[in-house]
Amino acid sequence: MTKKHYAAVDLGGTKTYAVLADEAGRTVARSRLDTMADKGADAVVGQIVTAVRNALRQAGPDAFLHSAGLCAAGFFDWEKRVLISSPNIPGLIDVPLEQELASLLGVPVMVENDANAAALGEGRYGAARGHSDLIYMTVSTGIGTGLILENRIYRGSRGFAGEAGHMIVKPDGPACGCGRRGCLEALASGTAIARAANEAIGAGIRTSLSETAKGGTVTAADVFAAARSGDRLSREILEESIHYLGIGLVNLVNLLNPGIIVIGGGVAEAGDDLFTPLRQFISEHAIPPSARQLQLKKAEMGVEAGVAGMLCLLQAE
Amino acid sequence: MTKKHYAAVDLGGTKTYAVLADEAGRTVARSRLDTMADKGADAVVGQIVTAVRNALRQAGPDAFLHSAGLCAAGFFDWEKRVLISSPNIPGLIDVPLEQELASLLGVPVMVENDANAAALGEGRYGAARGHSDLIYMTVSTGIGTGLILENRIYRGSRGFAGEAGHMIVKPDGPACGCGRRGCLEALASGTAIARAANEAIGAGIRTSLSETAKGGTVTAADVFAAARSGDRLSREILEESIHYLGIGLVNLVNLLNPGIIVIGGGVAEAGDDLFTPLRQFISEHAIPPSARQLQLKKAEMGVEAGVAGMLCLLQAE
Repeated sequence: MTKKHYAAVDLGGTKTYAVLADEAGRTVARSRLDTMADKGADAVVGQIVTAVRNALRQAGPDAFLHSAGLCAAGFFDWEKRVLISSPNIPGLIDVPLEQELASLLGVPVMVENDANAAALGEGRYGAARGHSDLIYMTVSTGIGTGLILENRIYRGSRGFAGEAGHMIVKPDGPACGCGRRGCLEALASGTAIARAANEAIGAGIRTSLSETAKGGTVTAADVFAAARSGDRLSREILEESIHYLGIGLVNLVNLLNPGIIVIGGGVAEAGDDLFTPLRQFISEHAIPPSARQLQLKKAEMGVEAGVAGMLCLLQAE
Repeated sequence: MTKKHYAAVDLGGTKTYAVLADEAGRTVARSRLDTMADKGADAVVGQIVTAVRNALRQAGPDAFLHSAGLCAAGFFDWEKRVLISSPNIPGLIDVPLEQELASLLGVPVMVENDANAAALGEGRYGAARGHSDLIYMTVSTGIGTGLILENRIYRGSRGFAGEAGHMIVKPDGPACGCGRRGCLEALASGTAIARAANEAIGAGIRTSLSETAKGGTVTAADVFAAARSGDRLSREILEESIHYLGIGLVNLVNLLNPGIIVIGGGVAEAGDDLFTPLRQFISEHAIPPSARQLQLKKAEMGVEAGVAGMLCLLQAE
């Protein structure tokens, strides 16, 4: 007898990650392919379909696909069901992704913002298990945020809620990829940390990072490593970026009084070097009743968070 | 035959305003008394009870009280049902207001944050009619905010959500009444506008406000009036405070993607002098898809908003 399965796909800027789960929610197959972000929309959509079919093939002849879900960074038009744009995949402009994938896969398809999906995944199975009101923030190339309020993804009036990365935390601050200035993302993302370091190296400031760079560029992880070894420049850069990340978190705490904030993405890998000063900042700067009961935790699920969230959504349909 | 009535009370720093409504929601009586904010908790509670009894007496012998609701600025402990503190009434510390009022009035009593109640009132009957996702912000002595998300008051994990007045909009900015620095309230409230003007007058800066002050102090309304007449200092002060209010609103728009933001309180009385530059700022600084569909409107209900919201809550019980 054939068995109902669900496919969940995380569409990243470099990798397209698909999992197949059975009706009980158990993952039975996985497939990871290059996203082909620079090859245009058709190539990207083709990779998604191939990843799903790969996973389905692994699951054997009895597995049939009931529905599929895709999460990706970007703005969705929820009325027209169109992906307006995606920051990491320049070719995806005004693509009716649900419809195209549904016609290629032959099943209903649901598209969701990746931070929303990851928030749901961490909320059901990860660092925020048991919390009804939580914020998930990924700090990596950019800063994305998903809000789970009263156990559900909060999307706002038209689906664009959760853009905490574009809160203004330093008026007239550095330029952001969004075209405006002083956004949280422009001050505290992995990209912002690396850029500050590379600019300082370029300006000839004395730092152990010059050795790491050796004519190339350094990453945010290099800056955290150098700071741990006592590099003064690295410490100053991190102090500044953590200060602004702290302001962003304080604003979220004061506005939404979440039970927990979960931070994922590459920068969260810095662990206590990031979380200890952030907790301190929040306890000093947020309103006391909200600060007192807030938990700030590292994400637990990595790349599984988004697909786990999508599976929750598919199974709830 | 006796008729079921509901009492709703808005507890302000200077006035205690009670209305009595019948089962159909029609207001049948009103009473307004001094709050006696400086006379201690018992006096304040006594005035609330007197205001409700006054209204009940006006309604005639057939009216009986079914339940009562009170809204006030402050932090509530929703588990213990205690008002932790209220910024305008120093004597109200750790008061079990619901219990005290219930025992004095002999009916069930519900307490709510005043900005939450006003948000609900404006959402059902006022400037935000028909919107499921809205933010109400009162800009007067302080800055209070109520969030209506998916048609319901959003309180966060422990009831402290909505403190947008304490978002940090200018790192290391001026001291705020909350004990921290650079909060929206410290830069853009009526108090902040008046303080900036009075400090400039004290410092001998040339301004037509010196004439208004005549040895006393000026208000935010005086600053708006002088700016309209071309006073340069007043224009600069307002430009600065509107800039920071704009940052606060942009952060709300980017994070929550509300359909509408309603601004009430004394400062909103400035009308277009406030709303035109704020709309411009939001359209330039918020993420375009959220900015495009946002409405920014002046509150319509004044002091009736809070009691109207409380009546909604009482009738939904």
